[in-house]
Amino acid sequence: MIFLTRRATFSASHYYWNDAWTAEKNEQVFGRCSNRNGHGHNYTLEVTVAGEPDPVTGFVVDLKWLKDVMEREVLAAYDHRHLNLEVAEFSDGGVIPTTENIAIAAWKRLEPAVTAGGGARLSRVRVYETAEVFAEYRGEL
Amino acid sequence: MIFLTRRATFSASHYYWNDAWTAEKNEQVFGRCSNRNGHGHNYTLEVTVAGEPDPVTGFVVDLKWLKDVMEREVLAAYDHRHLNLEVAEFSDGGVIPTTENIAIAAWKRLEPAVTAGGGARLSRVRVYETAEVFAEYRGEL
Amino acid sequence: MIFLTRRATFSASHYYWNDAWTAEKNEQVFGRCSNRNGHGHNYTLEVTVAGEPDPVTGFVVDLKWLKDVMEREVLAAYDHRHLNLEVAEFSDGGVIPTTENIAIAAWKRLEPAVTAGGGARLSRVRVYETAEVFAEYRGEL
Amino acid sequence: MIFLTRRATFSASHYYWNDAWTAEKNEQVFGRCSNRNGHGHNYTLEVTVAGEPDPVTGFVVDLKWLKDVMEREVLAAYDHRHLNLEVAEFSDGGVIPTTENIAIAAWKRLEPAVTAGGGARLSRVRVYETAEVFAEYRGEL
Amino acid sequence: MIFLTRRATFSASHYYWNDAWTAEKNEQVFGRCSNRNGHGHNYTLEVTVAGEPDPVTGFVVDLKWLKDVMEREVLAAYDHRHLNLEVAEFSDGGVIPTTENIAIAAWKRLEPAVTAGGGARLSRVRVYETAEVFAEYRGEL
Amino acid sequence: MIFLTRRATFSASHYYWNDAWTAEKNEQVFGRCSNRNGHGHNYTLEVTVAGEPDPVTGFVVDLKWLKDVMEREVLAAYDHRHLNLEVAEFSDGGVIPTTENIAIAAWKRLEPAVTAGGGARLSRVRVYETAEVFAEYRGEL
Repeated sequence: MIFLTRRATFSASHYYWNDAWTAEKNEQVFGRCSNRNGHGHNYTLEVTVAGEPDPVTGFVVDLKWLKDVMEREVLAAYDHRHLNLEVAEFSDGGVIPTTENIAIAAWKRLEPAVTAGGGARLSRVRVYETAEVFAEYRGEL
Repeated sequence: MIFLTRRATFSASHYYWNDAWTAEKNEQVFGRCSNRNGHGHNYTLEVTVAGEPDPVTGFVVDLKWLKDVMEREVLAAYDHRHLNLEVAEFSDGGVIPTTENIAIAAWKRLEPAVTAGGGARLSRVRVYETAEVFAEYRGEL
Repeated sequence: MIFLTRRATFSASHYYWNDAWTAEKNEQVFGRCSNRNGHGHNYTLEVTVAGEPDPVTGFVVDLKWLKDVMEREVLAAYDHRHLNLEVAEFSDGGVIPTTENIAIAAWKRLEPAVTAGGGARLSRVRVYETAEVFAEYRGEL
Repeated sequence: MIFLTRRATFSASHYYWNDAWTAEKNEQVFGRCSNRNGHGHNYTLEVTVAGEPDPVTGFVVDLKWLKDVMEREVLAAYDHRHLNLEVAEFSDGGVIPTTENIAIAAWKRLEPAVTAGGGARLSRVRVYETAEVFAEYRGEL
Repeated sequence: MIFLTRRATFSASHYYWNDAWTAEKNEQVFGRCSNRNGHGHNYTLEVTVAGEPDPVTGFVVDLKWLKDVMEREVLAAYDHRHLNLEVAEFSDGGVIPTTENIAIAAWKRLEPAVTAGGGARLSRVRVYETAEVFAEYRGEL
Repeated sequence: MIFLTRRATFSASHYYWNDAWTAEKNEQVFGRCSNRNGHGHNYTLEVTVAGEPDPVTGFVVDLKWLKDVMEREVLAAYDHRHLNLEVAEFSDGGVIPTTENIAIAAWKRLEPAVTAGGGARLSRVRVYETAEVFAEYRGEL
């Protein structure tokens, strides 16, 4: 079994806000992140797939294909977008786009496409908010 | 002469929009950056001062003091903010918060405080929008 | 389950020395690291906690809280210190502050505070001595 | 159990080519990587060993020894070489030097030497082709 | 005046060889780099242009345009190529593709296109062979 | 003219202390850096030489030679050393090993050897104390 990883970056805005709370409560819990004008990050998305290298090509999966999957399933929806306002899984208000929830959401977007590719299974999704903070999801273990 | 540099990061949102243009023209020129919901970045601010090391302390300037100047003059105003909507030099609409203009604006915020410190002159301000793009301003040469 | 990671840095001195050995034996085994004047590093401490995102906040733990735990439990004791001379778990001479042992010691300092926080369990502690060398501890598996 | 990791870099050329295919088929599957003149990368080899710190030295293994093992077993054979033409496990044509296969080959080169060292077992080998792409092998699980 | 910089990467092979010398002399001067099978690197190309921000757009130059210029003028010719065998300025044998000469060659490729763009002048070209080695050319000063 | 740069790292301890001051004054000015047990850093030394590429070799200087000069003149004296106690230019107490003074001292160590090499002149020395702080010296301009 080989674990093959590819990284890509996207820039997006977000804020942290719970509609069930007062503005004071939101600011108390979320601090400056509760600013409704939003603020932004250069996120790094790191996707790991697991499988056996194909004996003919030496590939677990074609890295060009994996790049396309990442761009089509995640970056096309997230890059240069305001996550709270423009991305379906967050804009209905039920899920706050924290780094943790972005990692889970990216997994859900990627998993069917990786599985459909046939060559490998999705093993791990990491989302870096900055170089100092990242969240990792490995599916429902 | 020694050039002493300190880096700090801030996260902010922005968009590119010229009020004098139609929406179509804005999108044509600015592409996805014209999205009025904004998008964001982890910016790195890199400030260089030039001077002679003090023979008693060995410092060109006290790095703790320089950090405070950067936080007070720039980060307090820019971090976790929407530059187009909440930062005075951009929110009046006349100046678009491109990386180039952020570098000039940061210089104008920093220069009086560095000069007032007395130990060195401001030599260079760099703003990284991502690891791949940065703008540098050295004042009016 | 989400794995959430935060990094911080500290600067410290150390040397490698076994009191039960002669100076020659120490130099033979530890090389330049046996220099009793000490030498130093910019260490990076990388702490991973595991848990479920809170459905209300979207947080596994509050990152500001995690930063405070790391600063209070580890950085306050290690940063700008000589590990062999000023940090209790190493200064009594029984444990040499190798990267391996610093990772274990940081785990022991962090684990009670993370557990007391209630939202997640400590999953992994990594200590980078340089960009090329790091040690990782996951507790007693 | 502590996981201790060391990194090293090497520069090498490779191309992707399957002798059983036509040139057209090779270019269709491998794209620009099928260029028989080869192209190159700065690879990073990241080796993780697992064991208990020696109570006397505080080492899982001596990092100088691990560096020597990596240089003798892998870098001496791969650095400044054309992998397809000059490295035995790839030059016979049966195994294409993809990042995946380089990770497996490096494991096979390293595992006997690490095991012979006696202090730890080989836990993980990562090979970075660029900062954006890496493959990881943990042996036959 | 603002200095605006953009980075891009390419992977290529090269070797160091002077046809006027014997094989022994080539190996003596160039060491392992004289291996005629070639070896490779992930190069980073860093291009700086200088100009005034356009008062209407806030751009010194359009970064998308600069990216296209870099890809068309340099990356299309260098990426996934063997510089000694497939790139005109090196393949005639007169110029060895050292980092120094690649920086000069990239400048010559970029300068007419940047000047023709009209908004700025080419100020600096940097080529990183690895993270530890880079060459910079600023034109004929 | 080409500017060719090479980086290397060294680990060292230092503290900030002025013998002419009281302990209180030293702590007030230098904060935690005044701890006489010392603390340490992984420094990066970045050396730039300027010259014309040799038409025969394509080199401004031989990078292997430059590496040897850096190791012999600076790293052999600074790496794994306590700068205040073991390095001549700082141990006599007159010069405090701040990043600024280390850059000047490294220049003085390197300049004669680079000049004696004959192929280029020393153009710039940068010393990074951390990724966030660095000092640069270009000689007496």
